[in-house]
Amino acid sequence: MPELRHDPIQRRWVIIASERGRRPDDFPRNESLPTGGICPFCEGNESKTPPEIAAVRNGSGANQPGWEVRVIPNKFPALRIEGSLDRRGLGAYDRMNGVGAHEVIIETPDHNLQLADAPIEHIHKVLRIYRERLVDLLRDQRFKYVLIFKNHGAAAGASLSHPHTQLIATPVTPLTLVEELNAAKDHYLEKERCLFCDLIEQELESGSRIVIAGEQVVALAPFASRFPFELFIAPRHHHHSFADASDEMLYHLAVLLKEVLLRVKKCLKDPPYNFLVHTVPNVKARHRHGAEWGTIELDYHWHIEFIPRLTQVAGFEWGTGFYINPVAPEDAAKYLRQTEL
Amino acid sequence: MPELRHDPIQRRWVIIASERGRRPDDFPRNESLPTGGICPFCEGNESKTPPEIAAVRNGSGANQPGWEVRVIPNKFPALRIEGSLDRRGLGAYDRMNGVGAHEVIIETPDHNLQLADAPIEHIHKVLRIYRERLVDLLRDQRFKYVLIFKNHGAAAGASLSHPHTQLIATPVTPLTLVEELNAAKDHYLEKERCLFCDLIEQELESGSRIVIAGEQVVALAPFASRFPFELFIAPRHHHHSFADASDEMLYHLAVLLKEVLLRVKKCLKDPPYNFLVHTVPNVKARHRHGAEWGTIELDYHWHIEFIPRLTQVAGFEWGTGFYINPVAPEDAAKYLRQTEL
Repeated sequence: MPELRHDPIQRRWVIIASERGRRPDDFPRNESLPTGGICPFCEGNESKTPPEIAAVRNGSGANQPGWEVRVIPNKFPALRIEGSLDRRGLGAYDRMNGVGAHEVIIETPDHNLQLADAPIEHIHKVLRIYRERLVDLLRDQRFKYVLIFKNHGAAAGASLSHPHTQLIATPVTPLTLVEELNAAKDHYLEKERCLFCDLIEQELESGSRIVIAGEQVVALAPFASRFPFELFIAPRHHHHSFADASDEMLYHLAVLLKEVLLRVKKCLKDPPYNFLVHTVPNVKARHRHGAEWGTIELDYHWHIEFIPRLTQVAGFEWGTGFYINPVAPEDAAKYLRQTEL
Repeated sequence: MPELRHDPIQRRWVIIASERGRRPDDFPRNESLPTGGICPFCEGNESKTPPEIAAVRNGSGANQPGWEVRVIPNKFPALRIEGSLDRRGLGAYDRMNGVGAHEVIIETPDHNLQLADAPIEHIHKVLRIYRERLVDLLRDQRFKYVLIFKNHGAAAGASLSHPHTQLIATPVTPLTLVEELNAAKDHYLEKERCLFCDLIEQELESGSRIVIAGEQVVALAPFASRFPFELFIAPRHHHHSFADASDEMLYHLAVLLKEVLLRVKKCLKDPPYNFLVHTVPNVKARHRHGAEWGTIELDYHWHIEFIPRLTQVAGFEWGTGFYINPVAPEDAAKYLRQTEL
């Protein structure tokens, strides 16, 4: 019998239809990225990108070779850094200028070094650059949220194969975040506990959906996973802001993230994937967009959503916000735990 | 400058980033459906499907050749028709049995006759079958919503190329519908007018996003379109329930839908697409799931969302519910209007 499960964070029902018994190798793929040509993200091609915003370098000059991680503006930005928002009504509609930031974090000078295969120390540097950019952009009060996300593979939306992450700072708090923030606030106001902490504790007790229970960070398949092999990665103990994560916490995250990426790569044969960081919005920005920030340090809990792109999203999902997942999260967790590294 | 636009129906912001100036033929595609083998939806293969639920026939017996439209249960249903919901909590979680209906409407006995190319009279029959199944399923008070949707092409989630539509009856009102119903109710309570009627009237006055202004039905590119060439099709005058649509209304819809499908097919080179019907939930079912039905006949307005699948949805969209659309809706409408049929 298929089962309907309610996601207490995004307040959405999901259909878990695992009767067809799909296994990790039942998801065919055939899309690939273009190869050949000059890669603008490779070391030595620094002049092919806009001037860098930040980098991890050992003494070399900006926009020269000799870097480990490099941050540049997106050459084709979805949002522009200059200008004012100019909010206006248009009859029944509302609009504003597309002001924001759109950056690319080039994770490595090596075109072929996937994040999964990078040394833990290097992943740690990438994560610290995520944090550095977040802290910097949150100083700009025009920006209400900063989303850090990675598209790996053509089917996941990547247009270049050189390993990179992106970041978009938006002048409004996105809908999905508002939903999560409201769910977390309501739970806290009722129980004076963090919703995420409660769920993580229940998951650790049950164990059936846990993939990796690290000392400081955990990875698990959510109870109401929308997608096969979807994962949720979060600090084990309460922590609301990725921008405030310590170097030590990010090191623990690097260790766990590498293991997650390796298990997924081996179990699912290097699938396309997305991951994205959910953290508190810019609490210094005045506009609240439906959420109250009063208890946010107590009620929200930063986390990473990890989504392998194994299935096509079809009409039903677009039409309803209601997902059909053919793999039970308990099975996904088991497959990933049992993968030999 | 990119622009942020607010969707007053789904209460979501969308980034319109049309600066890259993508034209209708800038969207490459390479996915295809398997060909060869026996198609279970073709005339003569009726025994390869579960027994039919309904059909348009001229005197021939059930599950025999001699039909024009045929409705069958999905052989691999996401939800099952038998059983009780058995709602239960699991610690902090909630679950229920996957009770519902999942049907396939085979639009034609002819494997190669796309809906776009079918005669208007035939499309009218398909639409009347949609309505018939909706009316029938809404008698079952376990079902809160019935979604009618079509996946055309592999990239849109279709697994068989024989023209068909699907229908899923769900025991909860899906999140996207709840959002729309709440927006419509709030607008009505404030203004005593239908939100959709207001928007349609504003669009008809402006004209820039109108694709087809039929006498009874209109097709337009929404102000805050999430996707390139996304369309909204709705009755021009207030009407809340697809289940109550008259034969005459459905005939007008058939005429308009055929023209939309032909324009899209020619302008965008037969792209994969989804369309789906949004109508009132089952007002006879008691559970309200966040929406009040008191004014629903006055505040809601049925419509069809039409989404060509031209771009990949990437990490940013999944992480935020916030879409980046590279084609301004005004341009999409213009391209479609200018397509010569």
